[in-house]
Amino acid sequence: MRQARRSPRELVDGALTGDRRALARLISLLESDTQAAAECVAHLHPRAGRAATVGVTGAPGTGKSTLVNELAKAFRRQGRTVGVIAIDPTSPFSGGAILGDRIRMRDLSGDDGVFIRSMATRGSLGGLARATADVACALDAAGFDVVLIETVGAGQSEVDIARTAGSVLVVEAPGLGDEVQAIKAGILEIADVLVVNKADREGAENTVRALQAMLDLGAAPRAVRHHGQVMDVPDSSPPADRASDWRPPIVKTVAVEGKGIDELVAAIDRHQTHLEASGEGEARRRQRAEAELETILRETLLARLRQQVGRVELDGVVDRVASRELDPYTAARTLIDG
Amino acid sequence: MRQARRSPRELVDGALTGDRRALARLISLLESDTQAAAECVAHLHPRAGRAATVGVTGAPGTGKSTLVNELAKAFRRQGRTVGVIAIDPTSPFSGGAILGDRIRMRDLSGDDGVFIRSMATRGSLGGLARATADVACALDAAGFDVVLIETVGAGQSEVDIARTAGSVLVVEAPGLGDEVQAIKAGILEIADVLVVNKADREGAENTVRALQAMLDLGAAPRAVRHHGQVMDVPDSSPPADRASDWRPPIVKTVAVEGKGIDELVAAIDRHQTHLEASGEGEARRRQRAEAELETILRETLLARLRQQVGRVELDGVVDRVASRELDPYTAARTLIDG
Repeated sequence: MRQARRSPRELVDGALTGDRRALARLISLLESDTQAAAECVAHLHPRAGRAATVGVTGAPGTGKSTLVNELAKAFRRQGRTVGVIAIDPTSPFSGGAILGDRIRMRDLSGDDGVFIRSMATRGSLGGLARATADVACALDAAGFDVVLIETVGAGQSEVDIARTAGSVLVVEAPGLGDEVQAIKAGILEIADVLVVNKADREGAENTVRALQAMLDLGAAPRAVRHHGQVMDVPDSSPPADRASDWRPPIVKTVAVEGKGIDELVAAIDRHQTHLEASGEGEARRRQRAEAELETILRETLLARLRQQVGRVELDGVVDRVASRELDPYTAARTLIDG
Repeated sequence: MRQARRSPRELVDGALTGDRRALARLISLLESDTQAAAECVAHLHPRAGRAATVGVTGAPGTGKSTLVNELAKAFRRQGRTVGVIAIDPTSPFSGGAILGDRIRMRDLSGDDGVFIRSMATRGSLGGLARATADVACALDAAGFDVVLIETVGAGQSEVDIARTAGSVLVVEAPGLGDEVQAIKAGILEIADVLVVNKADREGAENTVRALQAMLDLGAAPRAVRHHGQVMDVPDSSPPADRASDWRPPIVKTVAVEGKGIDELVAAIDRHQTHLEASGEGEARRRQRAEAELETILRETLLARLRQQVGRVELDGVVDRVASRELDPYTAARTLIDG
């Protein structure tokens, strides 16, 4: 007999009381249905805020997936429960199987204290960042102690996704070319903890030295930014110099052998403690709240306008912009004002 | 004597008549001032649409910058003028100097037929994609035959930026780890032309074979998508199977030695011809117009709401979301409905 379809509210209640199937279905709903997501998040949001959220980013080839897998196991050894969100580019070429979720699952399967979820990079950018935030909120509310968010690429949107987390790990590996990838990709600046993975490879010490040198040069901590823009820091925020107390530690790991993972967990915990002690955690929470609110506002306002204008008129305007009869700014103004 | 500050309109007129200083100042304006950008684009937009726009993306370390430099030189040899937009992560650690613009400039300096511009990845995502589109429009209207748009990272936002171009080059290099980077980063699917750069390195043939295999597997051309979402293709569009006529060619290059560059230029030209012959170019122009219009609508609607609501009230709402007193969806609805 098929189970009756459960309402969003029932899925939320199930997820909050440890029903893993309800959690899985809730997450699918959060990914796919903005309206249902709004209803669910209204229930989830007040119950979240307890988990340590950790973003993991870095260039492809640095071994992030294996690292996240080992981190999850290490947290489990300490008795902490772990939710993992892996942003997975489901290319038509790969069918999304490339991340090797099954390999990961093998290590961690049968353990109810771990929940792993891949998310597609399909959908609009704002959509993915929003969905990631909503899913993290669900895992947090469902009681997971740690939520790991793993991005795949190394670009600006990955930075924005990683920033939805409290602590950001930037993963580097030696031998991926001539330069330090994180520096080239512009993601070094968001690191709270730097990881040199594959540290048994030739050139690992050079990578560590290069990162040290960059830290010495910049000495700039992850600034209070909002979606990449320097934010107006409200008066209640801690002074900017408070934030500079934290210098990102560099942790060497060989994830495939489980080496350095305990040290990495310790570094993450130190950073989480620093966040709360320094007031930086509070400032970041406010940043994230503003970013999330703005994303939802943008999408909601656009959806309402689309509805008001109607498909036929909008298509006509798009045609005129495409044929260069009308420029997009004038078109936008015309649509909004009338 | 200092020159009088020129109005947006004067900068546009100067840029359109070949004044390079006016063009440079116009671009700064497009990057920094949304209101002035709207005014300028209204004048530029009807005059653009003639340039071949080419996006170049790929993981860090694949040698994109050198490749773009060599492409620019090759187009110049054919007598075509070239505008280059390099999306440059101005990290506080690097000060934005990492791309080595000066190295590039040395090769191409003194040539009025080339215009190179770096753009920071700072600013909101939508902002960067919008600014890139506006700057490409300015270079196009100013009469450059080819506009090259080089992204730095390899992620979803880079995909969106690359998609503002007519033809997308995805650059790969052998020896950057165990897998093909473009596949891992999920950017293979947007390739119109695949480039295996550093093809004199060990493993180049393996990389080519891996890419061939992925193409055989997927055989999916760059789909008609809109900001990553599969779009409602309007009835006037060519049928989807028309698009599948194009199989991305794989071109081997050694950019530092200038090898394979002429073949790459020929592949780009073939793709540009295909775009127009197949109707795919028209479909993509419409996609880009819709994406650009939506980005501007989102930002304009949000800006108007911010103005209506006022800073104090908005800050109060953000505080309540941050403290989990209010969820972001309910907050958004309350702000919009008033």
